[in-house]
Amino acid sequence: MTAHQVTIAMNGVTGRMGATQHLERSIAAIRRQGGVALDNGDTVWPEVVLVGRNADKLRALADRHGIDRWSTDLGDVLADEGVDVYFDAQRTSLRADGVRRALDAGKAVYCEKPLAEDAATAMDLARHAAGTGVVTGIVQDKLYLPGMRKLRRLLDLGFFGRILSVRCEFGYWVFPGDVEPAQRPSWNYRTEDGGGIMLDMYPHWQYVLEGLFGRIRSVCCHATTHVLERVDESNRRYAATADDAAYGLFELSDGVVVQINSSWATRVYRDELVEFHVDGTHGSAVAGLRECRVQPAGATPRPTWNPDVPNPIDFRAGWLEVPDLGADENGFKVQWEDFLRAVAAAEPYTHDLSAGARGLQLVDVASQSSRERRWIDMPEWDQ
Amino acid sequence: MTAHQVTIAMNGVTGRMGATQHLERSIAAIRRQGGVALDNGDTVWPEVVLVGRNADKLRALADRHGIDRWSTDLGDVLADEGVDVYFDAQRTSLRADGVRRALDAGKAVYCEKPLAEDAATAMDLARHAAGTGVVTGIVQDKLYLPGMRKLRRLLDLGFFGRILSVRCEFGYWVFPGDVEPAQRPSWNYRTEDGGGIMLDMYPHWQYVLEGLFGRIRSVCCHATTHVLERVDESNRRYAATADDAAYGLFELSDGVVVQINSSWATRVYRDELVEFHVDGTHGSAVAGLRECRVQPAGATPRPTWNPDVPNPIDFRAGWLEVPDLGADENGFKVQWEDFLRAVAAAEPYTHDLSAGARGLQLVDVASQSSRERRWIDMPEWDQ
Amino acid sequence: MTAHQVTIAMNGVTGRMGATQHLERSIAAIRRQGGVALDNGDTVWPEVVLVGRNADKLRALADRHGIDRWSTDLGDVLADEGVDVYFDAQRTSLRADGVRRALDAGKAVYCEKPLAEDAATAMDLARHAAGTGVVTGIVQDKLYLPGMRKLRRLLDLGFFGRILSVRCEFGYWVFPGDVEPAQRPSWNYRTEDGGGIMLDMYPHWQYVLEGLFGRIRSVCCHATTHVLERVDESNRRYAATADDAAYGLFELSDGVVVQINSSWATRVYRDELVEFHVDGTHGSAVAGLRECRVQPAGATPRPTWNPDVPNPIDFRAGWLEVPDLGADENGFKVQWEDFLRAVAAAEPYTHDLSAGARGLQLVDVASQSSRERRWIDMPEWDQ
Amino acid sequence: MTAHQVTIAMNGVTGRMGATQHLERSIAAIRRQGGVALDNGDTVWPEVVLVGRNADKLRALADRHGIDRWSTDLGDVLADEGVDVYFDAQRTSLRADGVRRALDAGKAVYCEKPLAEDAATAMDLARHAAGTGVVTGIVQDKLYLPGMRKLRRLLDLGFFGRILSVRCEFGYWVFPGDVEPAQRPSWNYRTEDGGGIMLDMYPHWQYVLEGLFGRIRSVCCHATTHVLERVDESNRRYAATADDAAYGLFELSDGVVVQINSSWATRVYRDELVEFHVDGTHGSAVAGLRECRVQPAGATPRPTWNPDVPNPIDFRAGWLEVPDLGADENGFKVQWEDFLRAVAAAEPYTHDLSAGARGLQLVDVASQSSRERRWIDMPEWDQ
Repeated sequence: MTAHQVTIAMNGVTGRMGATQHLERSIAAIRRQGGVALDNGDTVWPEVVLVGRNADKLRALADRHGIDRWSTDLGDVLADEGVDVYFDAQRTSLRADGVRRALDAGKAVYCEKPLAEDAATAMDLARHAAGTGVVTGIVQDKLYLPGMRKLRRLLDLGFFGRILSVRCEFGYWVFPGDVEPAQRPSWNYRTEDGGGIMLDMYPHWQYVLEGLFGRIRSVCCHATTHVLERVDESNRRYAATADDAAYGLFELSDGVVVQINSSWATRVYRDELVEFHVDGTHGSAVAGLRECRVQPAGATPRPTWNPDVPNPIDFRAGWLEVPDLGADENGFKVQWEDFLRAVAAAEPYTHDLSAGARGLQLVDVASQSSRERRWIDMPEWDQ
Repeated sequence: MTAHQVTIAMNGVTGRMGATQHLERSIAAIRRQGGVALDNGDTVWPEVVLVGRNADKLRALADRHGIDRWSTDLGDVLADEGVDVYFDAQRTSLRADGVRRALDAGKAVYCEKPLAEDAATAMDLARHAAGTGVVTGIVQDKLYLPGMRKLRRLLDLGFFGRILSVRCEFGYWVFPGDVEPAQRPSWNYRTEDGGGIMLDMYPHWQYVLEGLFGRIRSVCCHATTHVLERVDESNRRYAATADDAAYGLFELSDGVVVQINSSWATRVYRDELVEFHVDGTHGSAVAGLRECRVQPAGATPRPTWNPDVPNPIDFRAGWLEVPDLGADENGFKVQWEDFLRAVAAAEPYTHDLSAGARGLQLVDVASQSSRERRWIDMPEWDQ
Repeated sequence: MTAHQVTIAMNGVTGRMGATQHLERSIAAIRRQGGVALDNGDTVWPEVVLVGRNADKLRALADRHGIDRWSTDLGDVLADEGVDVYFDAQRTSLRADGVRRALDAGKAVYCEKPLAEDAATAMDLARHAAGTGVVTGIVQDKLYLPGMRKLRRLLDLGFFGRILSVRCEFGYWVFPGDVEPAQRPSWNYRTEDGGGIMLDMYPHWQYVLEGLFGRIRSVCCHATTHVLERVDESNRRYAATADDAAYGLFELSDGVVVQINSSWATRVYRDELVEFHVDGTHGSAVAGLRECRVQPAGATPRPTWNPDVPNPIDFRAGWLEVPDLGADENGFKVQWEDFLRAVAAAEPYTHDLSAGARGLQLVDVASQSSRERRWIDMPEWDQ
Repeated sequence: MTAHQVTIAMNGVTGRMGATQHLERSIAAIRRQGGVALDNGDTVWPEVVLVGRNADKLRALADRHGIDRWSTDLGDVLADEGVDVYFDAQRTSLRADGVRRALDAGKAVYCEKPLAEDAATAMDLARHAAGTGVVTGIVQDKLYLPGMRKLRRLLDLGFFGRILSVRCEFGYWVFPGDVEPAQRPSWNYRTEDGGGIMLDMYPHWQYVLEGLFGRIRSVCCHATTHVLERVDESNRRYAATADDAAYGLFELSDGVVVQINSSWATRVYRDELVEFHVDGTHGSAVAGLRECRVQPAGATPRPTWNPDVPNPIDFRAGWLEVPDLGADENGFKVQWEDFLRAVAAAEPYTHDLSAGARGLQLVDVASQSSRERRWIDMPEWDQ
């Protein structure tokens, strides 16, 4: 039983997300449990160098988690041959530069999403990373939520038979801000400030679809702005210029049809804010982020379409809740463990930088489809 | 209080649909109740001439309903100046001819759907009718079902404010026929036999959308065949050549976005087989054929999108059932009454032959969109 | 579309079972519906000759069902070359003779169960029938009850994956007759009168197991008498000499383990009087005669065995009711239709006389196992 | 009111089971409550000497529970005439030696189960103990769980009349480990590592049956392996060589028939993971580890077996929950109190070492029965 030490330079973990999800609930938790267990009985032990710009904050964070090393000089840290992994949770505008320097220093790279501010930069980085051969990874936390893990399990069990279609409804009513304050910041509704529901959600749909059902081959999207005027944090009316709803159709590489509605202008009549309805030849599932219900072929009712007679079937009663299975680990920690196993084995990691780049690429392709009012094929990745 | 007599030549009512819905439950019921009441206290009294090819059946039907006149000679009947309205419930292939002859004889026309076997014939007939200036109508029974009438009432009340979007889910699991018999005939799944879900359902979507929300301006549709092989009534496998699912996006003339999924290959997790989700600035509704639930702006909950925490809101509990609106009249009868009022007033009737023609036209445009993988604008009606 | 006439000599249908289930609800019902439909569009039309010993009863029965022919002379009827099928619903002691005469006359044979009073006679008859090559069949009505048909459908759908085991609980409390009358006749509890639960139920278990899961290879059975003294119809105490409970283990030809408890001395804590619990790699089902519940692998909960803590799982809530599918036809009629199709096609019928003989053979083998207190292999059928 | 002091040498209580269940929740709890009350108003007061191999752990444990004496020298402790009882909770491989030395030193003995690693050693020890005449006992904790105590109370009340049969279902679905981890260790499924459900559960069935219903006279068991391949803790496939299901029939000395299914390859459709269904002439009970339901003869419904008609009785509604019997005491403590009363009275204790030996003996006999495919009588104990 050997313990393999992996030293991680964590950059930008003084922020809330980095400090809580990545340092405290992931890396520190992994250290408390004695490292990451490998199948052969060995373990991976993460050592940490905190990197940032504020020495006081770094020192306090290091003290709190029993970490010996911290630095405000990223160049120094990347020059240290003992450092194996570079992790980046800085603000998006700084990420591409940090990641590129780490790749140039030959480090494995793990980072928060989005990988960059635009698809071109992201794809450029991803191709560069692929060329270096180092192990890379990007956070795709929704895949690790209970509902998505239940879907994953059903897929692994072959529950669906051949999958026919996936329909997804996402959205809720974001108050316009006139009578009561909006529950999202106003920049979300201004294109000029990087707003828009497609930019916000399509990177998620990309990795959920590709992580569960297969590569996206073709896209047809209609983005629109339903609520034309909103009121901002200073109680000022402003014109909503960004899309607040996007109606998307996707063809996956194996012919599965996916239909996804995303909207900040709908009132919810569902179990959860997002729901994926998956139909297969042998069974169907309706999964949210937490719960998942199934109906196998053998318990599928036999409705007939007779509008003149009230429907006699209680359809929802014909579905079965998938039970929770085992303790729900924090999704960020589970993904860190998967990534560290890949680093220890020097094997490619599923959710690598190219996956991160494809998320941004999907936003571009979907926008083009909406403008040109036609289906657009996703470019081959290696072109 | 005057009784205005309107004499109707009913052609093709020896069949099940014509005899039950149109003669017995509509015209005979109107006669039992003393005619159709007008706002000014007058009534419209329908007299009937049964027309058909089988004298024995006509005589028996006439006897059963206390009707004096029947004939096997349509020409004779149409030549009678005392006949005001021609009604056609013959098989589809005979309808265009019957309607054209009635129009040429200057009769008002009411008929079953579809108006003709193809869009071109239907549009030609509709234009011809428009030229004659007579009152015409076509059966659009779904609009008269309780759920659709509740929607209509909400619209009339201004409940929604400005309507933003309409999403519709229709479908259910039609058994492939291998383990147990399918609950739909096999020709539905063969293009060569006139099958396909788009041809079956899009005429309905056309009149429901136009009857409630406005003209369809543009169409983007993706038709597909999910279940590739089925077993027919003689227990023989056959290739399903017709579309069994259609994913449609529609823009209405006032900018409302409509998204409709139609599928014979999905397992139902809804209250009813078809459901329309209507979102407006002031409120939303979810309507099936029977029930309808609403959520006004003032009772809209305030969810936040935080995937790390289970959603604390029971969303469905936040909707209110729209109560039934008095005794549920038979939809066919209600539409007959509306049509007869229009005839008595010599005023145009909303659901005229052009509406029937547009239903078939929508199938054509949607098919073209699916083939060409792009949005297609609906042709202007008067072109 | 041709109508193939099949003439059936029905012997012994003046009794309750024969008159109700076979004549009225099966053959007469088939005639009312226009015969039995074949896959190629043809139909089989059953003509009937009633056979029996009481001319008055036969005449009355024939009149009631619009049947022209009846006879008290079986020899005459069997000599008629126009008669295709002999059906026997006489009392058991007369059946073997009737069936043998019909086989000798070259008729197809269909009969009530049991085929004979003992296994040797039954096997002899079955071998004789096999030699003649005529189509034969025996009533196995439980297979046609809704619960068993749902199981059949699940099997056809491949719902279970590989089947691991089948456990069956059958029984109820038959009152001893002392305080209140027993709900079964006293001869059931006396060996010398042909009583015993094994003789009563094992023929059913044989055809249910073989009809659904496969041939029985080996048997280990423990028959016992729990309630030693009962009170008969004349209020007299008598010693119960026959088995009122049988605990059976069966190995099927593909290794599936079947465990069946049958008892007239147990109080029921189940949904139905008989329940089959089927476990497979991909899912499980619990089926009674009417209802059937399933749990697929993907919704299987994850209990742990910790006796110190109350179990937190509501196990029964984790199962899904299999919906009723289509109108439930009378099982006797459905089997008649299947048999007549086989006769028309001159093809072997699944539930033939050998199946009937194996039911009685199982009783013999199980009795021997109980006496010798060991497993006994079922003899090969063709030995 | 006299306090009788009983000094107990507790060996092996630094382990989790010994420390928690035996020291903290049993002996320390008894001391907190002032000892064990006897019927005559006297009390038994337990003094403790902790025995083990790790002085630091012993000292810490003694401190925590206010115990004065501890030792790492078992010989010394057993030589002390002031020590009355030897308790052994060491690992199984060390137990036989410890118990034998204590018997030789004339101490009363109480120990954890299993008594030894094999039946021969255990029987040898038990016979040796019987020869010395000292009071001995072995832990049989399931008998002290609420459900079993309710059954015990029903038996003491004569609720059942004459007991006819006991049927037990035990088991649940242990995940094979391919899609998600198994909830039991992989060695359970390998014979070569001491796995197998019979070895795991039959010692429990032995003491539950004998503790409640009587001695086992004869055994017929069929052990099998349903799930042939599993995935271990290191994600490696392995062949399951041990039995994962055992179908057992037992005859008790008074003729009661017991039928027990044990399986790690079944999906649960019951109230609890284990359930005993007891039928008697006067009433029946269905007991799990926690709950127990009864149906007395006077409330037994009168079903009839008519497969053609849906069963009209809600059978489960006809049973009555046995209420909880006061505060649920920890089962280990209750058994300690019973044992200490026996020691104080110098009377034989029901669950003595011979009971422990018979549990292992049952595994041997059942295995032989399964191999030889026949009933095997349990050897007389004193042979």
